[in-house]
Amino acid sequence: MESETQAGPAGAALPLPPMKWDAWGDPALAKELSADVKALLAAALGVTGDAAPGPGADEVLLHPSRLTAEDLKALAAVVGEAHVSAADADRLPRAGGKSTPDLLRRRSREPQDAPDAVVLPGSEDEITALLALCAERRIAVVPFGGGTSVVGGLDPERGGLAAVVSLDLRRFDALLDLDETSGEAVLGAGLTGPAAEALLAERGFELGHYPQSFRFATIGGFAATRSSGQDSAGYGRFDEMVRGLRVVTPAGVLDLGRAPASAAGPDLRELFLGSEGTLGIITAVRVRIHPVPAAKAYEAWSFPDFATGTAALRAVEQQGTGPTVIRLSDEAETMVNLAMTEKIGGEPAVTGCLAVTVFEGTPEQVAARHELTRTALLAAGGTSLGEAPARAWEHGRFNAPYLRDSLLSAGALCETLETATDWRRLSDLRFAVTAALTEALPGALVLCHISHVYPTGASLYFTVVAALGSDPLTQWAGAKRAACDAIAAQGATITHHHAVGADHRPWMTDEVGELGVRILRAVKAELDPAGILNPGKLIP
Amino acid sequence: MESETQAGPAGAALPLPPMKWDAWGDPALAKELSADVKALLAAALGVTGDAAPGPGADEVLLHPSRLTAEDLKALAAVVGEAHVSAADADRLPRAGGKSTPDLLRRRSREPQDAPDAVVLPGSEDEITALLALCAERRIAVVPFGGGTSVVGGLDPERGGLAAVVSLDLRRFDALLDLDETSGEAVLGAGLTGPAAEALLAERGFELGHYPQSFRFATIGGFAATRSSGQDSAGYGRFDEMVRGLRVVTPAGVLDLGRAPASAAGPDLRELFLGSEGTLGIITAVRVRIHPVPAAKAYEAWSFPDFATGTAALRAVEQQGTGPTVIRLSDEAETMVNLAMTEKIGGEPAVTGCLAVTVFEGTPEQVAARHELTRTALLAAGGTSLGEAPARAWEHGRFNAPYLRDSLLSAGALCETLETATDWRRLSDLRFAVTAALTEALPGALVLCHISHVYPTGASLYFTVVAALGSDPLTQWAGAKRAACDAIAAQGATITHHHAVGADHRPWMTDEVGELGVRILRAVKAELDPAGILNPGKLIP
Repeated sequence: MESETQAGPAGAALPLPPMKWDAWGDPALAKELSADVKALLAAALGVTGDAAPGPGADEVLLHPSRLTAEDLKALAAVVGEAHVSAADADRLPRAGGKSTPDLLRRRSREPQDAPDAVVLPGSEDEITALLALCAERRIAVVPFGGGTSVVGGLDPERGGLAAVVSLDLRRFDALLDLDETSGEAVLGAGLTGPAAEALLAERGFELGHYPQSFRFATIGGFAATRSSGQDSAGYGRFDEMVRGLRVVTPAGVLDLGRAPASAAGPDLRELFLGSEGTLGIITAVRVRIHPVPAAKAYEAWSFPDFATGTAALRAVEQQGTGPTVIRLSDEAETMVNLAMTEKIGGEPAVTGCLAVTVFEGTPEQVAARHELTRTALLAAGGTSLGEAPARAWEHGRFNAPYLRDSLLSAGALCETLETATDWRRLSDLRFAVTAALTEALPGALVLCHISHVYPTGASLYFTVVAALGSDPLTQWAGAKRAACDAIAAQGATITHHHAVGADHRPWMTDEVGELGVRILRAVKAELDPAGILNPGKLIP
Repeated sequence: MESETQAGPAGAALPLPPMKWDAWGDPALAKELSADVKALLAAALGVTGDAAPGPGADEVLLHPSRLTAEDLKALAAVVGEAHVSAADADRLPRAGGKSTPDLLRRRSREPQDAPDAVVLPGSEDEITALLALCAERRIAVVPFGGGTSVVGGLDPERGGLAAVVSLDLRRFDALLDLDETSGEAVLGAGLTGPAAEALLAERGFELGHYPQSFRFATIGGFAATRSSGQDSAGYGRFDEMVRGLRVVTPAGVLDLGRAPASAAGPDLRELFLGSEGTLGIITAVRVRIHPVPAAKAYEAWSFPDFATGTAALRAVEQQGTGPTVIRLSDEAETMVNLAMTEKIGGEPAVTGCLAVTVFEGTPEQVAARHELTRTALLAAGGTSLGEAPARAWEHGRFNAPYLRDSLLSAGALCETLETATDWRRLSDLRFAVTAALTEALPGALVLCHISHVYPTGASLYFTVVAALGSDPLTQWAGAKRAACDAIAAQGATITHHHAVGADHRPWMTDEVGELGVRILRAVKAELDPAGILNPGKLIP
């Protein structure tokens, strides 16, 4: 849908990915920075001017495709001529993801890396044939869904092979089954969040997975990266929604998940959830669904400080009072209104720390969950702010990433990173990461919130804004390294929902140990002996 | 605890496992069959007499230990002389698990297989050294917890190696950490269910994992077999409780699970949950815990038929009304009062299908969950039976397995098996398995219940009672094969909570596919290149 309205490079032979090639999202939804934000940038960071604009799509230089005419003919023999292209206009929009380093690279006027061709297979058999062809011709394969990776998961790395192609899954866009009795649907991997929800809504059902990338990211991408949505308190992480999946690997096809639960050995679904295209291509996912909620309620809260708010969220989650959304901004994030994108940088709308709660379900469920949660939050020291701030958060919930592009154009570097740990260690973790970022980027604004809660712990999500230096890629790389080192030293996870990609790969050994890495390599060697699947990602 | 009171073989040098060597559980708790049960056996199966008694512990013949004096000396050098034994009295109680075939084998007067020695390591370093020694001397290792396997998971198979030892984890019996804030505890793998709960209760916490094997089985065994307890509706399956685990493998030690949730690649914990000792030795498990519930409520229900009752349980689970326990017996199971062990075979206490619900939590939670569940069950056609039948079920919840021993002595074969599938397929699955069992064992009683529910499906648990034939091992093997083939043909899981062991191994390829099996073999080859860990189990 989005692709038809977006301004993409001219001359594309294939349908375009849903996101703009050099920025987040749909250009129609991008906004100028408000006067408030500009004032904040000037006051906090001394950023006043505009950065030099990047090149237009037709000005970008790509390294020429390394594929021969014979290679392209062989690819076309598998997927059909209409579904393969080595045109720059098709390669550029799949040149990478949407991290700040990605966006900075897209703005370069030097020759850029891009996949050597794009292929759009239409069936599992075509994927099987493509993988065999690529193994034979030593061509790496980067699976492509919505293109929303912020961890370098789409970098067109060849891994020592002759070339690399982008395997775009957009043709896997069907609702393959809907079982109303069991509350399950089988969704094609290439369906975007909105496309999947639209198909389910026709039958009165909902998936309820709303990560910030929702409008563009795909079902296969959600599974391959262990995505977590803003409604995770109510509906779970995406990996918890997965009842089964189909994966095409160079060694054959897997169809995993025979029951809602099983004791038949290791759960092999859990090897492919989070596999990031390194072990196989996910083509279809069987997910848990629920009826479209009939009722909804909102309430925002203020807490005197982050520690008090954290304890309140913990009480709610450990008591199981049932909010669908629950999140808490720290003092700094609250002060700049980051949770309400239309008010960012304006007069602080809330003092202390803002928390947002949303409740969904039947009217009875909503009433009961709201009341229990309310009681717990009041007991924990919260002050109700009524509905408005919670509705404002929801209204702008997918818009924050657009800001990054505008900030970059205004001369400010803005990036996010996230982690998770047990409740006991959450405060220490927040201080350690904040200290690492502040030391690496003196004068930077470091904002933090909790957006995903579990009985035993929670996630921390950091937003960093700093004045753009003369070498922003190196500038951010240093800050990112410092933050990741701090996370690893604290014993927390290197990523709660952004995945590993290329950017977190140096910390995978901290995460799973050397033996854990050996296990991943052994599985990869069995499934992908030629090493064609997404080289340079996830597995060190 | 139990071991001190049990009647074990004379001459044991080591502490005994918690279960009697030739029967389920603690002999002090075993009971004679009631007159009602005897009447039922006579009427339904024509079983009237007593079978010949099996041999006493001192009459059993074991194949002699294959270990040399030098082997034993080397083992003792690792764990100390006090912690290794090749005495028959130590080998016999670890000769197998507690399936009906196991019990039949224990009754044989022919020489029996048993591990060639028993070792009781006291530290991870000792396990590491033991695994190195066993790889060097080509000795297989069968990890031993409570000894409650009913799928041949403890069979002393050598897998072509020179010998086999039982590695008893009973010395890993400490509460290693308790984090009240996060609601987490780190439990030694050798703690039995009651021992773990006692340690947690001292601090006001509870794990809440109550499988039928609770009194004897261990924390490590729960993890290694993906156990599921009777309170799974409230507290989840054991695998869902696991926040982290430590595993000693021949290739090194793994310490997995850095956060409550993570997107850092495949979840490697899920490879070891359900690994059944084939990939490593689990030594400690970090689990989610909750405060000991302050309140509890009970209500039993009658449904006119199993289909109506099934729809009612589905409504409760999909609405999330929050029972801690919810289970439903079919017409046949209800008729023989199987859910109330003290009334089995007596006048039917309930007509139609009995359902049991139990609620735990704070008084407010219990009241709210009870009321919501009650409303859903009434709307679905249930008739309340009050508290008594639910309390009767709870009173006898761990006793049913004792019956098997008494039935066997009375000339009746009794065994159970279980599976799970989506709600949509549950009825077809029940009919297919019942038909397979009835065809293989003409005249057998086949009883069924649902004991674990999920939003997308449920488990089915079958109890089969038949007159003991002249070759009961072959008799049951045929029935088991027929049931497993029917389960596989229906696309259901081969086991919901009993695990794979040796008995379900022939169906693992149906469960995960040939490529899934190749993945498991690749992981095993990486971690256990000498193939010493529990050969003949799980991985075909």
